[in-house]
Amino acid sequence: MIEKKPVILVTNDDGINAPGLRTLIGIVRQIGDVLVVAPDKPMSAMGHAVTISAPLRVAKIKEEEGYLEYSCNGTPADCVKLGQKVILGHAPDLIVSGINHGSNASINIIYSGTMAAVLEGSFENIPSVGFSLNDYRYTADFTHCEPFVLSICNNILTKGLPNYTCLNVNIPALNGSPIKGIKIVRQAHAFWDEKYDHRKDPQERDYFWLTGKFVSLDKGEDTDEWALLNNYVSVVPVHFDLTSHNTIPILREWERDNLSNQ
Amino acid sequence: MIEKKPVILVTNDDGINAPGLRTLIGIVRQIGDVLVVAPDKPMSAMGHAVTISAPLRVAKIKEEEGYLEYSCNGTPADCVKLGQKVILGHAPDLIVSGINHGSNASINIIYSGTMAAVLEGSFENIPSVGFSLNDYRYTADFTHCEPFVLSICNNILTKGLPNYTCLNVNIPALNGSPIKGIKIVRQAHAFWDEKYDHRKDPQERDYFWLTGKFVSLDKGEDTDEWALLNNYVSVVPVHFDLTSHNTIPILREWERDNLSNQ
Repeated sequence: MIEKKPVILVTNDDGINAPGLRTLIGIVRQIGDVLVVAPDKPMSAMGHAVTISAPLRVAKIKEEEGYLEYSCNGTPADCVKLGQKVILGHAPDLIVSGINHGSNASINIIYSGTMAAVLEGSFENIPSVGFSLNDYRYTADFTHCEPFVLSICNNILTKGLPNYTCLNVNIPALNGSPIKGIKIVRQAHAFWDEKYDHRKDPQERDYFWLTGKFVSLDKGEDTDEWALLNNYVSVVPVHFDLTSHNTIPILREWERDNLSNQ
Repeated sequence: MIEKKPVILVTNDDGINAPGLRTLIGIVRQIGDVLVVAPDKPMSAMGHAVTISAPLRVAKIKEEEGYLEYSCNGTPADCVKLGQKVILGHAPDLIVSGINHGSNASINIIYSGTMAAVLEGSFENIPSVGFSLNDYRYTADFTHCEPFVLSICNNILTKGLPNYTCLNVNIPALNGSPIKGIKIVRQAHAFWDEKYDHRKDPQERDYFWLTGKFVSLDKGEDTDEWALLNNYVSVVPVHFDLTSHNTIPILREWERDNLSNQ
């Protein structure tokens, strides 16, 4: 039983006006006091950028009972840091990020500003979750997301998350069939096979646009990509230890090589 | 025995003119044909940003036998993608990034443009390694780095790396005592405890500068932070699977909750 309303910090990487953020705000206002700090412009594919060489500013957009909204000139990770340290002055009970316009499943987590904000929360052991819809369009339909977002946020608030662990939640796009439920899964092994579209500007100078094809190398039925393809909401528990623990023993012989070189 | 000279792609996040990059170029030119594609301005703390909403440009700086150098208006991750796909047209034998002015040990890997470039290589299973010196000054002394960089690059070229695994190498700053060797270690558990310096601009508007204190929560003697403190070069094998595999079984009960909510 939650006696006091939880304090929920909301951010995203598509910017303060994105419909996905507006949907998420509407949902979490049902269960807590809400502080929104979101980028004043889209910040997609910013990865875990933080602003260290420029001054940060916040602008209050709205203040109501149980609701505060700010825009910020920084990245999603900056928004989470500023929201906590400058505006709240303490850790929130929950950080939610999204709902992203487009999937952050598999390798996309690495490029994702949405998930950078969530990881930022997990560094300080604040329960944090990122929501993304597998539809990148600005006009995407988010209406079916609500029961899943509510259920996952309520689970986090009542049961907690394992220490220093956050969640990467991806929701299938609306496709006519009902979503089958949620699956707790792992990050699929996939990558972007990039191409560059080579063009010339009016001054005949070369420039390049990044394009790419998503390639999955993973046939597992326990992955986020599998869940999305099969009309499940994927939930990946995420941590920030990038160590490849299995390969430490393999590389250990290099310690000897290097010592003998000195 | 390497018959043909290996092709080595070099980048960094401190920008094309950084002394750390110049040191690294000098070292790897001893062992291979070198293509440099580096940001035309400093890109520190850019995390894994990629440029999707702006045109990318490259400018040829230098061309010699076995050596090509370009600057690029993109991020370190962009440099690696462009270097391969546009300039080389194929995968290099090795990607090296750095030498970064400042440590990328422990949690710093998440914010690091240097390591984003390296991870980008590992996505395509290209042997990749990031080098950082534990001294953030522009005037840092890199002379002691050479034997370690050479030895690690030669190990990678002759023995290879485990599949989809890259290396995060951090080198102690020169401190009067000889470096003891290298240690294969894990990423230490640490975080930045941020503060914001609150100021007013000449128009009396508020702005904030990010500052912070590095806090280690890890007393292990098998971490990169421990290695650096004890005057070893730290080598962390890194992968891009952020799944917290251990916690999947703990969260599995949430699948039932959510299904019954439908």
